[in-house]
Amino acid sequence: MTKLWGGRFQKSAEQWVDEFGASIGFDQKLVMEDIEGSKAHVKMLGACGILSEDDISLILSGLETLKGKAAAGELEYSAANEDIHLNLEKFLIDEIGPVGGKLHTGRSRNDQVATDMHLYLKNRVSEIITAINHFQQAIVEQAETHIETIVPGYTHLQRAQPISFGHHLMTYFWMLQRDKDRLQESMARIDVSPLGAGAMSGTTFPIDRQLAAEHLGFAGVYPNSIDAVSDRDFIVEFLSNASMLMMHMSRFAEEIILWSSEEFRFIELDDTFATGSSIMPQKKNPDMAELIRGKTGRVYGNLFGLLTTLKGLPLAYNKDMQEDKEGMFDTVHTLMGSLPIFEGMVRTMKVRTESMEKAVASDFSNATELADYLAAKGMPFRKAHDVTGKLVFTCIQRGYYLKDLPLEDMKAASPLLEEDIYETLQPRTAVDRRNSFGGTGFTQVRIQLDQAKTLIEK
Amino acid sequence: MTKLWGGRFQKSAEQWVDEFGASIGFDQKLVMEDIEGSKAHVKMLGACGILSEDDISLILSGLETLKGKAAAGELEYSAANEDIHLNLEKFLIDEIGPVGGKLHTGRSRNDQVATDMHLYLKNRVSEIITAINHFQQAIVEQAETHIETIVPGYTHLQRAQPISFGHHLMTYFWMLQRDKDRLQESMARIDVSPLGAGAMSGTTFPIDRQLAAEHLGFAGVYPNSIDAVSDRDFIVEFLSNASMLMMHMSRFAEEIILWSSEEFRFIELDDTFATGSSIMPQKKNPDMAELIRGKTGRVYGNLFGLLTTLKGLPLAYNKDMQEDKEGMFDTVHTLMGSLPIFEGMVRTMKVRTESMEKAVASDFSNATELADYLAAKGMPFRKAHDVTGKLVFTCIQRGYYLKDLPLEDMKAASPLLEEDIYETLQPRTAVDRRNSFGGTGFTQVRIQLDQAKTLIEK
Amino acid sequence: MTKLWGGRFQKSAEQWVDEFGASIGFDQKLVMEDIEGSKAHVKMLGACGILSEDDISLILSGLETLKGKAAAGELEYSAANEDIHLNLEKFLIDEIGPVGGKLHTGRSRNDQVATDMHLYLKNRVSEIITAINHFQQAIVEQAETHIETIVPGYTHLQRAQPISFGHHLMTYFWMLQRDKDRLQESMARIDVSPLGAGAMSGTTFPIDRQLAAEHLGFAGVYPNSIDAVSDRDFIVEFLSNASMLMMHMSRFAEEIILWSSEEFRFIELDDTFATGSSIMPQKKNPDMAELIRGKTGRVYGNLFGLLTTLKGLPLAYNKDMQEDKEGMFDTVHTLMGSLPIFEGMVRTMKVRTESMEKAVASDFSNATELADYLAAKGMPFRKAHDVTGKLVFTCIQRGYYLKDLPLEDMKAASPLLEEDIYETLQPRTAVDRRNSFGGTGFTQVRIQLDQAKTLIEK
Amino acid sequence: MTKLWGGRFQKSAEQWVDEFGASIGFDQKLVMEDIEGSKAHVKMLGACGILSEDDISLILSGLETLKGKAAAGELEYSAANEDIHLNLEKFLIDEIGPVGGKLHTGRSRNDQVATDMHLYLKNRVSEIITAINHFQQAIVEQAETHIETIVPGYTHLQRAQPISFGHHLMTYFWMLQRDKDRLQESMARIDVSPLGAGAMSGTTFPIDRQLAAEHLGFAGVYPNSIDAVSDRDFIVEFLSNASMLMMHMSRFAEEIILWSSEEFRFIELDDTFATGSSIMPQKKNPDMAELIRGKTGRVYGNLFGLLTTLKGLPLAYNKDMQEDKEGMFDTVHTLMGSLPIFEGMVRTMKVRTESMEKAVASDFSNATELADYLAAKGMPFRKAHDVTGKLVFTCIQRGYYLKDLPLEDMKAASPLLEEDIYETLQPRTAVDRRNSFGGTGFTQVRIQLDQAKTLIEK
Repeated sequence: MTKLWGGRFQKSAEQWVDEFGASIGFDQKLVMEDIEGSKAHVKMLGACGILSEDDISLILSGLETLKGKAAAGELEYSAANEDIHLNLEKFLIDEIGPVGGKLHTGRSRNDQVATDMHLYLKNRVSEIITAINHFQQAIVEQAETHIETIVPGYTHLQRAQPISFGHHLMTYFWMLQRDKDRLQESMARIDVSPLGAGAMSGTTFPIDRQLAAEHLGFAGVYPNSIDAVSDRDFIVEFLSNASMLMMHMSRFAEEIILWSSEEFRFIELDDTFATGSSIMPQKKNPDMAELIRGKTGRVYGNLFGLLTTLKGLPLAYNKDMQEDKEGMFDTVHTLMGSLPIFEGMVRTMKVRTESMEKAVASDFSNATELADYLAAKGMPFRKAHDVTGKLVFTCIQRGYYLKDLPLEDMKAASPLLEEDIYETLQPRTAVDRRNSFGGTGFTQVRIQLDQAKTLIEK
Repeated sequence: MTKLWGGRFQKSAEQWVDEFGASIGFDQKLVMEDIEGSKAHVKMLGACGILSEDDISLILSGLETLKGKAAAGELEYSAANEDIHLNLEKFLIDEIGPVGGKLHTGRSRNDQVATDMHLYLKNRVSEIITAINHFQQAIVEQAETHIETIVPGYTHLQRAQPISFGHHLMTYFWMLQRDKDRLQESMARIDVSPLGAGAMSGTTFPIDRQLAAEHLGFAGVYPNSIDAVSDRDFIVEFLSNASMLMMHMSRFAEEIILWSSEEFRFIELDDTFATGSSIMPQKKNPDMAELIRGKTGRVYGNLFGLLTTLKGLPLAYNKDMQEDKEGMFDTVHTLMGSLPIFEGMVRTMKVRTESMEKAVASDFSNATELADYLAAKGMPFRKAHDVTGKLVFTCIQRGYYLKDLPLEDMKAASPLLEEDIYETLQPRTAVDRRNSFGGTGFTQVRIQLDQAKTLIEK
Repeated sequence: MTKLWGGRFQKSAEQWVDEFGASIGFDQKLVMEDIEGSKAHVKMLGACGILSEDDISLILSGLETLKGKAAAGELEYSAANEDIHLNLEKFLIDEIGPVGGKLHTGRSRNDQVATDMHLYLKNRVSEIITAINHFQQAIVEQAETHIETIVPGYTHLQRAQPISFGHHLMTYFWMLQRDKDRLQESMARIDVSPLGAGAMSGTTFPIDRQLAAEHLGFAGVYPNSIDAVSDRDFIVEFLSNASMLMMHMSRFAEEIILWSSEEFRFIELDDTFATGSSIMPQKKNPDMAELIRGKTGRVYGNLFGLLTTLKGLPLAYNKDMQEDKEGMFDTVHTLMGSLPIFEGMVRTMKVRTESMEKAVASDFSNATELADYLAAKGMPFRKAHDVTGKLVFTCIQRGYYLKDLPLEDMKAASPLLEEDIYETLQPRTAVDRRNSFGGTGFTQVRIQLDQAKTLIEK
Repeated sequence: MTKLWGGRFQKSAEQWVDEFGASIGFDQKLVMEDIEGSKAHVKMLGACGILSEDDISLILSGLETLKGKAAAGELEYSAANEDIHLNLEKFLIDEIGPVGGKLHTGRSRNDQVATDMHLYLKNRVSEIITAINHFQQAIVEQAETHIETIVPGYTHLQRAQPISFGHHLMTYFWMLQRDKDRLQESMARIDVSPLGAGAMSGTTFPIDRQLAAEHLGFAGVYPNSIDAVSDRDFIVEFLSNASMLMMHMSRFAEEIILWSSEEFRFIELDDTFATGSSIMPQKKNPDMAELIRGKTGRVYGNLFGLLTTLKGLPLAYNKDMQEDKEGMFDTVHTLMGSLPIFEGMVRTMKVRTESMEKAVASDFSNATELADYLAAKGMPFRKAHDVTGKLVFTCIQRGYYLKDLPLEDMKAASPLLEEDIYETLQPRTAVDRRNSFGGTGFTQVRIQLDQAKTLIEK
């Protein structure tokens, strides 16, 4: 067989296949979870009288030794032993002798790897939720500082209405709140133990699956052994939730990048989160915002990859399912990198309130106020719109903004317009008067912030 | 401008753009939701004293008339009026005169369309959950009938262990249960009212958003007006949940197709769900299973389409977001078609128990039993595996199965093997002895079914 | 069977399944291609002596009648007849009697539908190439007008170096050129006839596949009958090419949107391609650019949908493959709408050269020039960078731009700096001096335009 | 700034950001390409008189030293130096002193990294094409051996018509041929040099881009400097082509898995490509076929990831584009692993001709032959179908196949049926008579093989 490829390759077919099929290169990330799972399993075997107390002590002490070595980075994994499970079994037998082989009683690699994945993701999702909380705190703090900072609100990237910058920032708070809620809800499907499902059909040994689950801190056990070993839904769900979270960050990142441009000049990023140029020290590239925006693709790709892999797969275990891990690891890594960086970026960014105010002052985003003024004085809505449109047109022709238009021109358009219109046209007034629930009026933004603060852990 | 394309096209640029930009071709599906939203809005305007009782009566009666016409299919939509909102406003004014224009007080198309989408999806998700329940019932019924039907359990599409066919079917029950749970949880984000958020920043009119929400039966209101109009997460979440559900159906469909093949012959589909051939009357193509498997791609595509559209989009409304609807409608249509068909397919399929039993009888999937038998008699696990492997090899060479091997050959391999080994090798015995929680043992499958039945509405 | 769903639905299971499985709702788009394919097939059957001259005349005249009716929109398709092929066969038999059934001799629906798809896509891809050509022409014209218009070149959305606006626009020309080349190359796989491959294995009738292919204008025939009926690669390839094309348009659209903002003010879109607001007549929403950017998601989704559907599908025909059509139709529709609109948008946009020049004048994007000036006078590169950085820093502190810095300050930094540095710092000079091949120097842009013009048909 | 995250993390914000932003962890794969690019660049600088001969000798010898160290794995990369370019520049300066800094004259990291990517992909695509050729050869060899091996042809995974197994295998040959053609065509867009485009606008140094391109063996240079540095289309195109190729392998893998099942038993994989079980030595899991089928998801994900990243990205360089590399490397690795393994799997698989023949003998896939027999004797097509259907139905009721039905029963159905019908019904006869071009008739398969052989390099 060695000659299979006619000397084209330096490796034999067997080597080639072994290396292509081995998962130890990436599933070694599960080493701690695998050891924890084994400890719980062996304790349960003892409690059920399947293994003797002596065997259990020996195995547990061996596992502790391996845990120490793993923490110290002293385990040397081998591709010849395929995956993390066989590598650890081999290490254990090296450590404590043949009795190590008894660890696998009433267990199969199929339920073992599923257990590892559940443990791993349970811990990571919990950390991600904490990281979101910190990110939300940073948003709340900036928003609180900028409740009364006025900035143009955009639709179609065109200035539409003046709004509170704090209100604008809080939009991202709520997106993240939904992300957190979804991740929290997904725990109901992550925090479930497949251990004891065997290869697919359970076992003839009198095991106690609930007990093993308790040792591992799982909230429940799978009620169907085939489902227990073939379910990868919890990973797909995680990748879906992560994709949404990245989508949110990509939107915020887009705004950070726009605001940092010389055209907007709404914020200045802290040097930590921007890269300069030796030749152009004024240049501050919002590298981190761009990179996070770019990494959205990677996470979407991980989601789509796993959905593709699982499409049309018959029960129960198929080797295709080995492809469930790398995308998950990569996504965890991406989120755990992006969230604190985004938090820091928001926490430290300098808001250029003067540029924002200048932007608001020099546009027609207060035209709605004029129309509302007329409507409130009894003019029909359509007519009020019409009058406003004509006034704006007049301004443009003369190079004015609405606030600069003499009262006589105002009155010529409609006698309902009086001196107090100029106060109404003030952006600050316009913002504050939008006092409907959830609106941009300062009082409402304060109410909103109070509600938000109850939703994040301090 | 008409000459823009040098006579290449029959339409002017204006027409071309109008038609490309219009959404009435698909958003007319929201007609009932739009009318309901308008009714709630106008009632609230009355309660808040913003419109007079007379105006309200007139508008409500006009909306009732439109509702009747919509139900009867008598509304003739026009692309010139862009979308469902402007079309209905125009119809209303035609119906009751200029007062119809007052309906739009304190509202914008931005919060209006978001309200329609929330109402629409709330109703559809509820129907989908019901359809899943019915599908689960069909599975439970078939599973209950086939608790004691033995079939090979497969890993790598190779026969691995004999299992209960009912147990196998129940795997899909649990997948669907997770789908249902996720859809139910998503309601927390669908069942929220954006109405009253205006274009993006709220309104200066003294509206009562909670009241309007109550009229529409929403459980809550958005706390941030920008989020209210720019959030499309609830649609992405629906498409994610739908993708997972289709993935599950694609896996079940794959098995239906395999089982229907002449090679497996495990089931026979009812004629309703299979197409034949005039020339080959014995042929039964599992068309519906194939089509549903194929439609998985369409739903994945809808998910990725919307994720792409939203990537990097700044706040608040952008025209890109008009692309949120067609994928959602198509996904609803696909699910509401696929679920009842799959239910019917499972409900009516004829299980060929004799083929299944034959398959189980003529393989080595009971080899694990022999090894367990030896282990239970005290032989170390690895040694038991080794002995079993050699016996299987002997059988293959002689053209036997394990159950056919004379006792003397058994004993030659290990004196621990006695007459009762033949009972142990019976597939039925093998299945029943896997009595760990969630296992394929008959008692366990019955427990599982009892649990399952509490989770579906009758 | 009617009682299958216990009265929950108004339709019987049979109706439900028929409607879910029928493709006539969308494959009627292939009516002309199906008639052309039939005409070619029947002429070939005649030439090969398989059908009589009389039969052929009758069938051909019947097909001509149907063609006329199809063009006039007079054919009433029925879901009961599943698809376009059976509908047309039924119409033909209604038209000319039972002889119409002979049309199907030596042909199957499998090769028939494949033939239709090849014919359809061949025509559409040809039209799309033409539309790209027109779009490129619009770019070339704008670029030619603006060879000497200076605009900031951006990296990280930060102003980096002054460039020719014509040069910038031409970047999109080359992207489109690659799109065109790929589409042209894909013709080698579209322009191939599957006709005569039968259900999958060919036919026993003495047909002449090459002759039928010639009648249809195909460049070749499939050499393997199974491949001929099961290949959908040419559609995947089209969707890949379309995805890339949409990605290009999404990038150009993003820039159009940025340039149209009040912050950039680099261009003003023609009213045809922007929507205004009755109340804010100055507002011009770049709706078409946003919509095209948003539709990128739809096309990506169509690509991934089909890739998913085909993943893991065994040979030969499976019902899953019916899902190949809607995504293709939708993609053709999207491209044939977007391309002329983008062409028109570019052709008619007004470039605000004064805003561009102002932007270039008031930044430090000429810092590179100063460094190069020093390097050209012999100062080592790193040192030149260092000196420049310090000068920029000095300017920022004093509120200057480099061009405003007095010569004495220049000389204090390096005696190599002399009076002519002010000319060097002129953006126009900076642009023009980048005269390397393909660079932004005016001469190079002219050379580039000459090359470009040879690549588009007038 | 170190206190930014309030002591939650062990790293400072700066470290965190540096590590998140660094690409050296993966772009070190480009080390050889980066050195080659530098050598070509410096030679060109010499030829153009921009650097002195001495400097050039020194730099070239330094680069040679680095090349040697890279080959020996002796370079120790540092994340502090961000990427492969800065790492190598640092190594070079360490090696030859400050003159190493002159290497970067007239070049920027933007055109440098683009050059590396083009060089890398050009080499890899060439290797992939070779690997496809070898895979095709294995198919041709198996197909040639099995021209006259009869197997059921399937539609809907139902036996439809008997075909030549060689003909079936050749379907995959043609899919691969299209993959090869597309990859070959993509070279027109890969084999193009961006070197000399600078940061985005070219350079003021009198460089000769064509000369540098010639040194690197590129067929051409980019005509637009902005396009040169911002184009990643060639990577998207590669990922599209790779996705199609993986889709093809996933289809073939699905069949390999089906054929290896105990239900089909059409082939037996060589032990090298299947994994067994210590306890069930008869079990052969088609692990490699499953793994390759599963890896389809990964490659689709890489494609979708990059398409997402590029969507809506403005010109020119943005940090998002750093995300172009990992998916490309992963895809190359996946293809270069999968192709030789699939080749080996096909080359060594044992075809169970007897199982195939048994399958063909015991079904009704020859019903078409009977209908054709009647049609050829003048019976109208519809009538012939009808008669055949009835005969099959009779057979099913009596437990016969068509070939077992007594002649008198045949004649009772139609007097046209005579003794020679039994010969016609032979699967071998049925296959051989499908002699239309590209059909499964043996003569046609031989013609097809001859054509195929001209398309692969020996």
